[in-house]
Amino acid sequence: MNSKIEIIETGTVTSPDGFSAGAIYAGIKAKSKTGFDFGILYSKVPCNTAAVFTTNNIKAAPVQLSMERLKLGKAAAVVANSGCANACTGKQGMTDAKETTKAVAAHIGIAPEDVLVASTGVIGRMLPMDLIKASIPLIKLSTEGGHNFARAIMTTDTVIKEIAVRVTVGGNKFIIGGTAKGAGMIHPDMATMLCFLTTDAEVDIDFLRKALKQAVDISFNMISVDGDTSTNDTVILMGNGQSENDPITEDSKYAKVFQQALDKVCIYLAKQVAADGEGATKLIEVTVNGAPTVADARKIARTVVTSPLVKTAIYGNDPNWGRVMAAIGRSGVPVEENNLNLFFGNISVLKGGQPQNLNLEKASAALKKKEVPIEIQLNSGDASATAWGCDLTEEYIKINAEYTT
Amino acid sequence: MNSKIEIIETGTVTSPDGFSAGAIYAGIKAKSKTGFDFGILYSKVPCNTAAVFTTNNIKAAPVQLSMERLKLGKAAAVVANSGCANACTGKQGMTDAKETTKAVAAHIGIAPEDVLVASTGVIGRMLPMDLIKASIPLIKLSTEGGHNFARAIMTTDTVIKEIAVRVTVGGNKFIIGGTAKGAGMIHPDMATMLCFLTTDAEVDIDFLRKALKQAVDISFNMISVDGDTSTNDTVILMGNGQSENDPITEDSKYAKVFQQALDKVCIYLAKQVAADGEGATKLIEVTVNGAPTVADARKIARTVVTSPLVKTAIYGNDPNWGRVMAAIGRSGVPVEENNLNLFFGNISVLKGGQPQNLNLEKASAALKKKEVPIEIQLNSGDASATAWGCDLTEEYIKINAEYTT
Repeated sequence: MNSKIEIIETGTVTSPDGFSAGAIYAGIKAKSKTGFDFGILYSKVPCNTAAVFTTNNIKAAPVQLSMERLKLGKAAAVVANSGCANACTGKQGMTDAKETTKAVAAHIGIAPEDVLVASTGVIGRMLPMDLIKASIPLIKLSTEGGHNFARAIMTTDTVIKEIAVRVTVGGNKFIIGGTAKGAGMIHPDMATMLCFLTTDAEVDIDFLRKALKQAVDISFNMISVDGDTSTNDTVILMGNGQSENDPITEDSKYAKVFQQALDKVCIYLAKQVAADGEGATKLIEVTVNGAPTVADARKIARTVVTSPLVKTAIYGNDPNWGRVMAAIGRSGVPVEENNLNLFFGNISVLKGGQPQNLNLEKASAALKKKEVPIEIQLNSGDASATAWGCDLTEEYIKINAEYTT
Repeated sequence: MNSKIEIIETGTVTSPDGFSAGAIYAGIKAKSKTGFDFGILYSKVPCNTAAVFTTNNIKAAPVQLSMERLKLGKAAAVVANSGCANACTGKQGMTDAKETTKAVAAHIGIAPEDVLVASTGVIGRMLPMDLIKASIPLIKLSTEGGHNFARAIMTTDTVIKEIAVRVTVGGNKFIIGGTAKGAGMIHPDMATMLCFLTTDAEVDIDFLRKALKQAVDISFNMISVDGDTSTNDTVILMGNGQSENDPITEDSKYAKVFQQALDKVCIYLAKQVAADGEGATKLIEVTVNGAPTVADARKIARTVVTSPLVKTAIYGNDPNWGRVMAAIGRSGVPVEENNLNLFFGNISVLKGGQPQNLNLEKASAALKKKEVPIEIQLNSGDASATAWGCDLTEEYIKINAEYTT
C-alpha cells in the first residue's frame, strides 16, 4: 500500500488535531533557563492512552498515580513539571500528585481521574504546592502551546526535543507528535525519562499499547547517558481519533505504517536525548550485526554504549578499540572471538579476531565527528540491534557534582 | 584458640619465607613513572596455587594460559607486565605468552609449565617480544624484590599497593603477603585486576582455592571504579609451605585464622584499589544491612557504589541522596520503601521511607572527608554486605580520554 511519512516543520505535541498545551514558570526551580517549569497537555476529547513506565523498583508518586489511572487506557490531559521529581516523598508525595491533577482538572473543566501526572528533577524533596496551585489558573492552553510545554519539562537538557510527522496512507491522513526530556540518569529499562506522544489517529487501545512497547524497545530502551535508571521514567502516547481515519487495530491495513511512523518519532527523540546527554559533545551509535538473537544483539550494543571507558575514548578521539572488546566480553553474551569483526568509527580494526594494522593518526581523525559509528559483526547469526549514547566529558562531572546544593 | 594477626611494616609479596622477586624496565611502555614495567615473582619450592580469573567472555592470552597451567594447582613463578594487556591479539598473543614464560623459566632454571603469566595495559596490541627477551636475563631476584615487582605492575595507579601480615596461632607462625594494581576498568565479577598473594603457610590446595574464593568475594568482588570489567583480571595465591606449620586443611584448627588473615590482606588491597581509582579523591564505603539475603545486600551495595550520579555527588560534596535511592531501586532487588532508612555520610536523610529535615550545609560538610560512608538499612532481614568505590571526577575523564594515542 502506498504510504508517506513526512516530517512537519516546527512540529510538536500540539501538531495533531485536537491537542492544546500551555506552560508557566511556577517557581519550582530557583531559576529556569527556558522560562518554564510547569506545563499542561490537553486533548479536547478523551484519548485512548498507552504508557510505559520505569522498571526502577522505587517509583515516584506521579508514576504510581499515572499507572493506576491508566488501567482503563483513557486520559484527556497530562500535567508535567521539572525541578522536583516528587520521588521518595512518602505519603505527602502522593497527596501532592493527586492535588496537582485536581487543580488542573478544575482549571480545564474535566475529571481529575482523566489527568495524568509526570515529574522530573531532584529526588527526595516536596513539591511547592502553594506555588503550583497559584500558577495553574494562569496557564493558557493553545494549539501552539506544545513548544512551551516541551520547554517546561527540560532540566539539564540544552536543546528542546520535539517532532511531528504527517502520515498519508490510502485515503487517510494523521499526525504523530512527540516531545522528550533527557540529559542525566538515562539508562532505560522498559521506559526512560519523560516523553509525551500525541496522535490524532483513532487507534484501538490494545494495538496502541503494543505499538508503543515496540517503538520504545528500539528507541528509548536503546540509549544510555550514564547507566542510571530514573525513578520517574514515563512515556505516554495519547490518541484522540480527531483525524477521522479508519480506526487502526493490530490487524488493520494501516497498522504497519502507524508503527513505522511511531518508531520514527521515538527513534528521533531517543537520539536527541542521547546526543544531548549531560556534557556530551558526540552521539555514539553502536550497531551489532550477525548475532544469534535480537536479545543478544541488544545486550552487547547497550553494554558497549554504556561503558565509561568507551565513552571517554570517543571523547578523546582515541582509537582505543580494545575497550569495545572488553565491553563486548562482559556483556554476558558468549562470543566467538575468532569470528569477530570490529569497525571503530568506520575503520576496520579487528577481522576474524585478528587486530588489523592501524594508522593511529588516521583512526583518531575518523573519530573527530559529531556522530561516531561503531559496528560489531559477530558472524554467528542474523539478528541485529542498534544502541545510542554519548561521550563522557569533564562537563558531565561538573554538572553532576554541582546539581542540588 | 589464641591467635594474632599483625601487619608487617613495609611488608610485601616477598615477606613470606622462600619467595623472591625482581623487576626491570623492559620498554613495553614508552615511559614508566615507577621505573619498571616487567617483573618476576618466584618461590624456591613449588607452591600449591589457587587463582581467580576474569569472568569477561573475552579473555586475554595470559589469562587463558595461566588457567590451563593451574589445573593441577601447582606453580613456582609468575611473570607479569604492565603497558600491554596481550588481549585480543589472536594466535600470536598466545605464542608470545608462552615464549615469555619459556624465557623466564630458562632464566630461573625451572620448567615453563611452572610459570604463570599476567599482563595489564592497552588491549589489542602485541607484546614487544624482542625487548622482553633481551630484558629477562638481566632481572635479579631477591627477597627484597617484592617492592619493585609491585611497581612493575602499576599502570595509572598513583600509589604502590602492598601488604603483609604475620599470623601467630598455636605454636605456628606464617606470613601472607600481597600486591595489587587497579586504577581503571575495575568492576570485578569473580575476580578483578591483577593481584598476587603469597604465603609461606603449608595449605592444602582444596582449602587454598576455597579460601581464596571467599576472600575475593568480600574484597575485590565488592569494589568498582567505573563499571568496566577487564579482560585480564587475575588474582593468584601461592603457598609454599616454608613456614613448616601444621598443614592447613578446611577442617584443621587453623583454617579460620588463615581465612581471617587472607580476608584482611584482600580487603586492604581492594580498598587501596578503590581509593586509588583513576582520578579519585575519595573512598566511598556502602554498607547494606537488614537485607533478606547476602546476595541481595551485595547487589544493592555494588549498584550504589557503581552509580556515576552517586559518585559525582560525593565528589561535589552534594548531599543529593535521592541518587542513592534511584540506584537502590534499579538494583533489581525488591525493596519496601516504607521500611528503608538511609544514612548519607553518617547523616540520617530518610527514615521509614520519609525524608528527614536536612540541613544542607551541614550535610555537605559531612561529605568533605577522604572516606565517605553510606549506610542503607532495609529492615527486611539480617544479611549485610559492604562495597567500596571512589568518586568520579574530571581527572578520570582526562586520564581516559588520553590513554593510548
